[in-house]
This record gives sequence, structure tokens and C-alpha cells, in this order.
Amino acid sequence: MRDITNLVDRITEEVLRELSKRGQPGLAFEPRREAVSPASLAGMIDHTLLKPDVTRQQIVQISREALQYGFAAVCVNPIWVRQVAEILRGSAVKTCAVVGFPLGATMPDVKAYETRRVILEGAAEVDMVINIGALKGGDMDAVESDIRGVVQVAREYGSVVKVIIETGLLSRDEKITACLLSKKAAADFVKTSTGFAIGGATVPDVKLMRETVGEELRVKASGGVRSYADAVAMVQAGADRIGTSSGVSIVRGD
Amino acid sequence: MRDITNLVDRITEEVLRELSKRGQPGLAFEPRREAVSPASLAGMIDHTLLKPDVTRQQIVQISREALQYGFAAVCVNPIWVRQVAEILRGSAVKTCAVVGFPLGATMPDVKAYETRRVILEGAAEVDMVINIGALKGGDMDAVESDIRGVVQVAREYGSVVKVIIETGLLSRDEKITACLLSKKAAADFVKTSTGFAIGGATVPDVKLMRETVGEELRVKASGGVRSYADAVAMVQAGADRIGTSSGVSIVRGD
Repeated sequence: MRDITNLVDRITEEVLRELSKRGQPGLAFEPRREAVSPASLAGMIDHTLLKPDVTRQQIVQISREALQYGFAAVCVNPIWVRQVAEILRGSAVKTCAVVGFPLGATMPDVKAYETRRVILEGAAEVDMVINIGALKGGDMDAVESDIRGVVQVAREYGSVVKVIIETGLLSRDEKITACLLSKKAAADFVKTSTGFAIGGATVPDVKLMRETVGEELRVKASGGVRSYADAVAMVQAGADRIGTSSGVSIVRGD
Repeated sequence: MRDITNLVDRITEEVLRELSKRGQPGLAFEPRREAVSPASLAGMIDHTLLKPDVTRQQIVQISREALQYGFAAVCVNPIWVRQVAEILRGSAVKTCAVVGFPLGATMPDVKAYETRRVILEGAAEVDMVINIGALKGGDMDAVESDIRGVVQVAREYGSVVKVIIETGLLSRDEKITACLLSKKAAADFVKTSTGFAIGGATVPDVKLMRETVGEELRVKASGGVRSYADAVAMVQAGADRIGTSSGVSIVRGD
């Protein structure tokens, strides 16, 4: 695994060099040309409810709203996945579950097991939290293999993996490294925030993440995205998906 | 399982009747007679560090402090259990891991699996979070079997289970019910809070929990316990254990 760490270090250095050449990260980013509208936003929204005291009624309600507005997915805690999947069955709206959430501080095999379980309950998308402590300690192998463990399980079932890097707790270099490790581990998305730590999605972070992963991975902006203007700003910064509990008011253009 | 629900309902009613006869809950509680001192508090403290961006150095530091001051346990996220257990090996200080933390919103078998894993890594105590949504929805079977799943694994290894009921999110009746279900599921402790939701340990909650579980279960007060005065108040209200990240300043009498 030592050569992987070296490789990541080298890639990180290259990206940092490249970004510093261009001045402020993200300034060189080509903004999206297609117009953003409330209607086009709907298909990019993960309708999200992750509070621990959510009730079944609220879960049913957001699932029905997702069908009504044509959201991308409904994102919930593992205990609600089966309920959501039953309501969404036969529609284009995906069931999304969080794993190792929101601290990311459990063992890789526990995350992998939880991934299998939520997929068997009906999740087509899995939003996992990285091992933040390992990243801060420079243990790249641990961060990458933790992500890879979830990705490998998800691949067996054709499920999508989004990697929550928790930008609010990371330095700029750590954000870049987390994105590169997610890419190396063959994840589908990098995602800004859990919504449970300090800080949420910001335009500079979304731009930095987009620049870092290129076009191969998608970017999900989440945490504090509450208005139509917030959502448009995230998409223009490079987000492909928006995680929010305010999806209904956003697509109404509020 | 229906008869269990009925039983719990009946017990809950009885306790509520009994408490209302006595007027305000807790007022009838006999305060502890033994004097509390900084030194006697040390052995009741779970020295705690659960933030997601904790580093190895901080984990080593709190483990050493726990040895130095003779704390009851060091309480950490699963990824740090092995490290802590290695440092504490041969001492009277226990290694404590959180499970299903802090939302409690994952499946029972995931919590049971995580319990086995943290015990195999070296945890002698497991602090699990209940399924709060199920409690709010009145699904007592789900709440109890979730706790029981963790307790059964812990029993195989002689480990202690503390059940975090997250008082800040519960009504008075829900707190009582959660305590009774913890007792029925043969847990060792009920514990007030994760420290990640609204509200922490309060004197009235600790009294209510102590009254509800009687002398068979122990009570852990956690969340917002920062000073010596806080800690003494919790012990006088009936707490057997204090979860805090301020253990060092507490035993210094600050």
C-alpha cells in the first residue's frame, strides 16, 4: 500500500501546483452554459431528512413529495430505507441511504456491512462519510481502503456511492486529498457535508472539488443549501446533485 | 411480541401513576448521603472524545490522562478503540466505545455487528443509541429488540451496555418508556445524551431516570457536564457515571 500513498502524494502535489499556477482555485472553472431553472433543478435534488427523531409520517411525506416533484432521490437514515424504497418502487426516484453517518468514525468493515444491508433494504445510492481522523493523521491507506470497502459492496449491486468528505472540518489540502482518494477508490460522487458538523456547502469548495475530480466523478453539494439562489449557485459552481431538506421550496423558486 | 408491548404499556402507566402520586418526579428521591469530592468523582468519569476530527495524538493524550487520574473509562469512536485498549491494558480503566452513534438510526443487526467488532477491538463497555424514531412512533418492540440485540452480543463477552436515550429529543413519557425498555432488555446503564443533539444532562432528567430504573440499572449523565459543580449535581441527582470531555478540570475541582 506504500506505493499508493506515494502516488496520492504525488498527484496531490501536481494538483496543488496546477491550481496555484491558475491563481485562486475555481476561477479558471468553466461555468455551466445550460440555463438553470426550478424545473431543471428538481432532477438534481436529493430530498433529505436525517434528523434522529424523524417519524414514519415525515418519511412517507418526503417520499411522496419526491415523486410529485421528480427529485433525484430521497436520502434517509438506514432504518427508513425499506419504507422509502417501497413508496418509490417503479419510479425514477432513487432511494439513498447514509452509511457511517454522520461521524465516519466506525470501522471499514462496519461501513461495508451497513452498505450491504441498506442496499438489501432497497437503497440504490449510498452516501458514506470518510474516516476524517485518518485523513488528518495522514493515513491515506486507511482513508482509501475505507472508501473502497463501501464501493466494492455497492458495485456488486450496481449501486452508486457518494463520499462525504465533510469540508467544514478540512483544510484546503485535505479537501483535495480526500477528493483524489475518492477518485482512486472508484467512488461515483464526492459530497461536501453531512449537515451535522460545522460548515456546509460553499461555492469555493464545490469549485475546488469539481476541479480536483474532473469530469469522471460527480459532485454533490449538501449542508445549508436552503434557497433557490443557493441551489443555482451550487450548480453553477459545478454541482451535479444538491442535498437539501428544502427541495420543495427550491423547486417552487423560493 | 404484542404481549411485550402491552406489558411495557402497563408498566409505563404504573410508573406514571406512581410518580404523579408523589407530585413532581424526583422530589421524593433520597439524595446520596456520602460526600462527593473531586477524588471520589474520578472513578465515576468516562473521559470522552467523540468529535469526528479527533487525531491519534489526542486519543493517546486522553488515555494517558485517564490512567493518571484513575477515571472509570475512556469513551471514543470505534476507529480508536484498539489504540485506547492498548494504552489502558492491565489497568482498571475501561475502554468504552459508542455504537450506532450519534443518531441511533441504523438497523439493529448493524448495531449488533458494530458491538461485536468494538468488543473484539478491546471495548469492555458499549454506549449505544436507541432507535429514537421507533420510540416516537410507539413501536416499543423495535426499540426493545434493538437494545436487546446489542446486549446479547455484549453478554457473550461480559461487556457492559449503556443505553443512550437522548433525553433532549424526548417527552417525559418517552424518557420513562425508554428507561423501562432498557431495563427490560437487560442493559446495565441508561445514559442521558450523545452530546450531538439539542440538550444534555439535566438534574431533573437524571432524577427521573434514576426513579424509573430503580437500583437495578445504573445511570450515566452526559452532555454539557463541564464543571465540578455540574458533576456533583449529577451525582447527587442519582448519576453513577459522568460522561464528559472536561474530566481533568472536574477532578481538579474547577
